[in-house]
Amino acid sequence: MNSSIDEDCQQNAVVQPLLTDLYQITMAYAYWKSGKSNANAVFDLYFRKNPFNGEFTIFGGLEECLKFLKKFQYSETDIEYLRSILPVSTENEFFEYLQSLTANEVYLYAVPEGTVVFPREPLIRVEGPLIVVQILETTLLNLVNYASLMSTNAARFRLAAGKLKLYEFGLRRAQGPDGGLSASKYSYIGGFDGTSNVLAGKLFNIPVKGTHAHSYVTSFCSLSEVTITELKIKSGVEKRDFLQQTKKWREKLMNTFQIPINQASDGEFAAFISFAIAFPDGFMALVDTYDVVKSGLFNFCSVALALLDFGYSPIGIRLDSGDLAYLSNVARNYFKRISEIFKVPSFENLLIMASNDINEETILSLNEQGHSIDAFGIGTHLVTCQKQPALGGVFKMVEIDEQPRIKLSHDVEKVTIPGKKETYRLYGGEGFALIDILQRTTEDSPQVNCKVLCRHPFQESKRAYVTPIKVEKLLSLYWCNGSICQKLPNMQEVREKVKNSLRILRSDIKRSLNPTPYKVAVSDNLYTFLHDLWLENAPIGELS
Amino acid sequence: MNSSIDEDCQQNAVVQPLLTDLYQITMAYAYWKSGKSNANAVFDLYFRKNPFNGEFTIFGGLEECLKFLKKFQYSETDIEYLRSILPVSTENEFFEYLQSLTANEVYLYAVPEGTVVFPREPLIRVEGPLIVVQILETTLLNLVNYASLMSTNAARFRLAAGKLKLYEFGLRRAQGPDGGLSASKYSYIGGFDGTSNVLAGKLFNIPVKGTHAHSYVTSFCSLSEVTITELKIKSGVEKRDFLQQTKKWREKLMNTFQIPINQASDGEFAAFISFAIAFPDGFMALVDTYDVVKSGLFNFCSVALALLDFGYSPIGIRLDSGDLAYLSNVARNYFKRISEIFKVPSFENLLIMASNDINEETILSLNEQGHSIDAFGIGTHLVTCQKQPALGGVFKMVEIDEQPRIKLSHDVEKVTIPGKKETYRLYGGEGFALIDILQRTTEDSPQVNCKVLCRHPFQESKRAYVTPIKVEKLLSLYWCNGSICQKLPNMQEVREKVKNSLRILRSDIKRSLNPTPYKVAVSDNLYTFLHDLWLENAPIGELS
Repeated sequence: MNSSIDEDCQQNAVVQPLLTDLYQITMAYAYWKSGKSNANAVFDLYFRKNPFNGEFTIFGGLEECLKFLKKFQYSETDIEYLRSILPVSTENEFFEYLQSLTANEVYLYAVPEGTVVFPREPLIRVEGPLIVVQILETTLLNLVNYASLMSTNAARFRLAAGKLKLYEFGLRRAQGPDGGLSASKYSYIGGFDGTSNVLAGKLFNIPVKGTHAHSYVTSFCSLSEVTITELKIKSGVEKRDFLQQTKKWREKLMNTFQIPINQASDGEFAAFISFAIAFPDGFMALVDTYDVVKSGLFNFCSVALALLDFGYSPIGIRLDSGDLAYLSNVARNYFKRISEIFKVPSFENLLIMASNDINEETILSLNEQGHSIDAFGIGTHLVTCQKQPALGGVFKMVEIDEQPRIKLSHDVEKVTIPGKKETYRLYGGEGFALIDILQRTTEDSPQVNCKVLCRHPFQESKRAYVTPIKVEKLLSLYWCNGSICQKLPNMQEVREKVKNSLRILRSDIKRSLNPTPYKVAVSDNLYTFLHDLWLENAPIGELS
Repeated sequence: MNSSIDEDCQQNAVVQPLLTDLYQITMAYAYWKSGKSNANAVFDLYFRKNPFNGEFTIFGGLEECLKFLKKFQYSETDIEYLRSILPVSTENEFFEYLQSLTANEVYLYAVPEGTVVFPREPLIRVEGPLIVVQILETTLLNLVNYASLMSTNAARFRLAAGKLKLYEFGLRRAQGPDGGLSASKYSYIGGFDGTSNVLAGKLFNIPVKGTHAHSYVTSFCSLSEVTITELKIKSGVEKRDFLQQTKKWREKLMNTFQIPINQASDGEFAAFISFAIAFPDGFMALVDTYDVVKSGLFNFCSVALALLDFGYSPIGIRLDSGDLAYLSNVARNYFKRISEIFKVPSFENLLIMASNDINEETILSLNEQGHSIDAFGIGTHLVTCQKQPALGGVFKMVEIDEQPRIKLSHDVEKVTIPGKKETYRLYGGEGFALIDILQRTTEDSPQVNCKVLCRHPFQESKRAYVTPIKVEKLLSLYWCNGSICQKLPNMQEVREKVKNSLRILRSDIKRSLNPTPYKVAVSDNLYTFLHDLWLENAPIGELS
């Protein structure tokens, strides 16, 4: 492993207690001064709106949060730095107190990573000494917000692409080096098949993919640049003239399809031959450097047919510009005709990959038009989440010393649901989730086959009875007594979780256009509790 | 310093040679196999379109690129990993070759970091052995793209905000931990006054700002929670009853302004008093937890006036919701009236900060409406560059073994300008830049007071003579013989560079709405060179 990762817990070393907003520290001091250090607080981490105009979100980042708790401790230089920026009047004992802080007294409950989640329900609940819990806010949000956004974005691409292969190609456009790395990781978790990012492959064991760029093609000018011309027959040791074989096929194709040879680039041909000699069993070619139809496909097929003669299996082509639906169909037809004419059945199913500025809508639109693409390489739109580059996760105090807290707002959506809560997911007959319900932790859990009254948290008249055939408790304890207290799934298992978790949602909730909202309700008890507290805290206005 | 940063070169350790696309490695092998290892290549790094619908871009990330070159070398585990993912047929000598690679034979020319730059002109030109130069592509793009995007975004906020203070508050919404850190750094470079990100403060010596959150306010319920009630008089050692003084002021204000006291939250009052006791010279309060007008302002002023009595200078308020223009005006009027009535002149100029989901357009619109805001705290829109979350920088081969290379495309904007080039910035009489011109490196530089023919690179009829009174050569050598070969500016100097570089642009180029494009021309010589090569490489189509 390398130095970017803390040896202890395999986490980017940038993740540390000072990766926070200054106001967490200034609040800590004010709390400390007013004797609130040991007040026991409960905070909920949640979001208010699903991203990408969708109706679901995938929860990501939990493992990173737990690793952060594990190593949470200010270093000496941290304390030194804090001394330098806080007022000189700040008491020395406070810095000693800070230096002694750990997350050992904190309890962290969470939904399993990779679970489909919805607005207003706690993804994470943190309980413990007020100062410590408060001070975790910014870092936890940073770790959850982008991870969840990326996982959700990837899952949406996966839904749009169905069974087609999806590869993440976004490193060069990502928001910084670590942004790129996280993008690769959470794309894979969300359902991608691999990445081009080699470091992500090394660190996370994600399949890595890649062939060549336009510059590789343009670096060749003529066939004289093919310095190695021989290739070993796959099944033997004997080397034969590969260049000659590709030329033979090129002439044959030219005659068969009546293509004027002067249209096809010799430089591109040379580049493909050299690449095939380097990767005879991994030959995949970018065919749009000059002209897909007149040059790229033609050169590719000449080389691919020669590879087949030598016992190898060429992989396919990549299209990086132009009308992808049209060009993919042209390519597929060309492959089919060659397959028939020259009796090479495998040619029909060569892989066609597309990779030009593709987003979720492009895939949906291509699917409607009809295309012959087998795989997409996706960059900018995926890794920067261009459609909505931030998830608005928040971390709100809901209880302190067993007294509930509510944050009021003119905007009802911004009112917090007070108190310590559990979330239950209620399932119907067909295995689909019907509704999620928030309850106070003091309430009994909903029972299978018993009617549960589900209420809209803010609209009195919206109520419904639900009789679940299965009840799932979403939050469970992940961190207590200073350590992770349940076995964490590996990345592959989280990926499976995403897949399975999405299966329990009806398809109308998952669709891209006008999806049906999934409801998050509160119990009758929590409804009353919330609104009593609201009335208690809201000043009665005066019309004036 | 801490472990997130390589000791040698102070760079996030995630930045390493494997932070790249796999195809760089597969291309390297194909190049190596075809004997192209020592071909001498020239690549330009540039972008095609200014971000944010604007007409300028700030170049960022150069220092990071140079640090990367300095440490560029595959580790043993890197090579081990690459062996595991490349085909077993990959020759052993290639891995030995990879392990021996350094950036020592590479030359890197660049525009100074912080310079205002434009589409199609090289920000960086890299020359050297083909494989090494090619292999740098992804990492250089990753380091330049987000840094330039962020610097530009910050500079645009700075232009919109004029002389108002700007603080970056985006860590929790950034794209990952390192995304947050880079955002803080490049916001400062682009013209922000500080950040809330403590780690950015520690690592980059950026001023850090912060006060408290809503949760701090809601954690207090009543005045009985103010456990420390005394405060030292600033100029002395004597402690007096501060709580009593704030209560006195609260009553006085209530009478003066005829405010019904039951509207103001006691919890908020307690929170403010405690915060003021902790930070008597840094008292800044978030006033919108309950009601700005009926509670927040009223409680703030009571505490601030008491602080003045004790010899301290309160700072001001933060508004985080509602109609910011209106509320800021109400607050300013309130401050003014108090200043007059109670003869406290400093009260009039208390700081008013606003921080709710602010973007460039919000600031411009607030300026139009009229407001009393002195400072903005900006999060999501700044750090994720929500309006356009990626800059499309590219890295294209323009020459190999002294032979120019051109990449053609149906889209004229995507055609590369071939050959090794210089960029000159030509200045007019008023100190403003008139035009940038690309020339072949073999041409003489434009001369002061001599007519220069400037041509549009792709439209034959668009030509103009320019007589510069000053000529600036933009590219200079930053890396040769394995080390950085000119003194790099520190962050403060880069920040100054941004400021000064923007001054040389006419304001119509910088404005937010319908800005005038700044022209990037080519010399007559380069024009001919480009189009001759184009004709040579473009197959003559046949209408069919």
